[in-house]
Amino acid sequence: MITVSILGAGNVATHLFEVFLHSETIKIVQWYNRSLRALAMYQDQVETTNNLNDLKPADVYIIAVSDDAISGLSEQLPFKNRLIAHTSGSVSVYDLDKKNRRAVFYPLQTFSKGVAIDMSAVPICIETTEKQDVPLLKALGKQIGCHTHKVNSEQRRALHLAAVFVNNFTNQLYRVAHEITEQEGVEFDILKPLILETANKVQTISPYLAQTGPAKRNDKKTIKKHLKLLTNEHHQAIYKLLTSSIKKTHGSIPRNN
Amino acid sequence: MITVSILGAGNVATHLFEVFLHSETIKIVQWYNRSLRALAMYQDQVETTNNLNDLKPADVYIIAVSDDAISGLSEQLPFKNRLIAHTSGSVSVYDLDKKNRRAVFYPLQTFSKGVAIDMSAVPICIETTEKQDVPLLKALGKQIGCHTHKVNSEQRRALHLAAVFVNNFTNQLYRVAHEITEQEGVEFDILKPLILETANKVQTISPYLAQTGPAKRNDKKTIKKHLKLLTNEHHQAIYKLLTSSIKKTHGSIPRNN
Repeated sequence: MITVSILGAGNVATHLFEVFLHSETIKIVQWYNRSLRALAMYQDQVETTNNLNDLKPADVYIIAVSDDAISGLSEQLPFKNRLIAHTSGSVSVYDLDKKNRRAVFYPLQTFSKGVAIDMSAVPICIETTEKQDVPLLKALGKQIGCHTHKVNSEQRRALHLAAVFVNNFTNQLYRVAHEITEQEGVEFDILKPLILETANKVQTISPYLAQTGPAKRNDKKTIKKHLKLLTNEHHQAIYKLLTSSIKKTHGSIPRNN
Repeated sequence: MITVSILGAGNVATHLFEVFLHSETIKIVQWYNRSLRALAMYQDQVETTNNLNDLKPADVYIIAVSDDAISGLSEQLPFKNRLIAHTSGSVSVYDLDKKNRRAVFYPLQTFSKGVAIDMSAVPICIETTEKQDVPLLKALGKQIGCHTHKVNSEQRRALHLAAVFVNNFTNQLYRVAHEITEQEGVEFDILKPLILETANKVQTISPYLAQTGPAKRNDKKTIKKHLKLLTNEHHQAIYKLLTSSIKKTHGSIPRNN
């Protein structure tokens, strides 16, 4: 049995609470939040508190608060030599107060409030300042059905940055496509199967090999047509930059990766 | 029974051949290609020809050749008043020779040679110069399990352009993420569930509502960290442009679409 306390009440904290609660090998000792109101609907399922001094011993304290609040919260903890893990992709493990054993338990996935997620599709990146703490965090991840990956600080930072490209930036390209279709009164829905297949394709072949389209073929006629169609300057700038990026990747000697 | 002849031997032609062949209500009359070699492996399953003068009557001739070859091929057809449909997203229906009835049968999906695709996930955009030809093309699409959408020229052009954003450009963002992770020796595989979930999310909520991350939050600290991490100038330019695009979309008054 692994004993866990959760600190914070955002999306990640709430998703972790739900999966910890349904695990038979994890016991949630307490759920802390600065304001108890956010936890009110869970108070029949778990002991809640808004007082750090009430925190009882646990194998690990998961700090799932906003990036800027992590360091301050870790400083306020009224105990030492216990295992503390934050869940952020971009905050350094050394931002946690050094009076405790420090770690990161970073679920690399996009969580939306109220949207259930298959935990087997959530990779957990684990980083610790002390080697001895890896097995417990790996076990915690496995017991909720996740794949775990031990990473170092540089690797976690690279993953967080890469995640912005494949999640936030990709989603913005969907948004631009939505704007383009809306402008001609055609349904964005028609693009949804293509969006899925594009994501599916790179599950088995590399993005390099998956690439197709006018930029890869250097089909100047189509590129010119498209630039003429784009009345929005911002959309045009994105079109130009990503077309030149594809040309850069595929332009010279073909590579096989 | 709908009778069809296919002209061309690329990805789209081959995928259409496979699904037409397995339909009990579609008969493939002939498969034409300039070179018979590309069709050699299919000659036991269908009558193949490399001579346009041999083409027999069919309800519809599907021209699935490269964009630049469509117009010329349609001019060479030695008959008139028959229904001709090309499969391109960007070529005008009027680029087909006007001696025949002209149409577009555009499958909005990414096809890879040898990769089977679920046809129910292939929307077919249909455009015709004559109204009477819509029902046959709709029936053809339905009989291979596709959703069909009647569109006009502007709408098809908008869809083709939007498809470049959600397919080619999105795939290039995956490629950049691959480069970023590779550089730190961390596996791109860890990002694959996030790639899928990002595509999944917009199947049910709009890209506008699905957006998260540092750019949307205007989290200057994280953005600055990321820009410092990006050593590749090209990656940096993409980061800056898409961050500013997200800010543009989400920056001012919150909208609900």
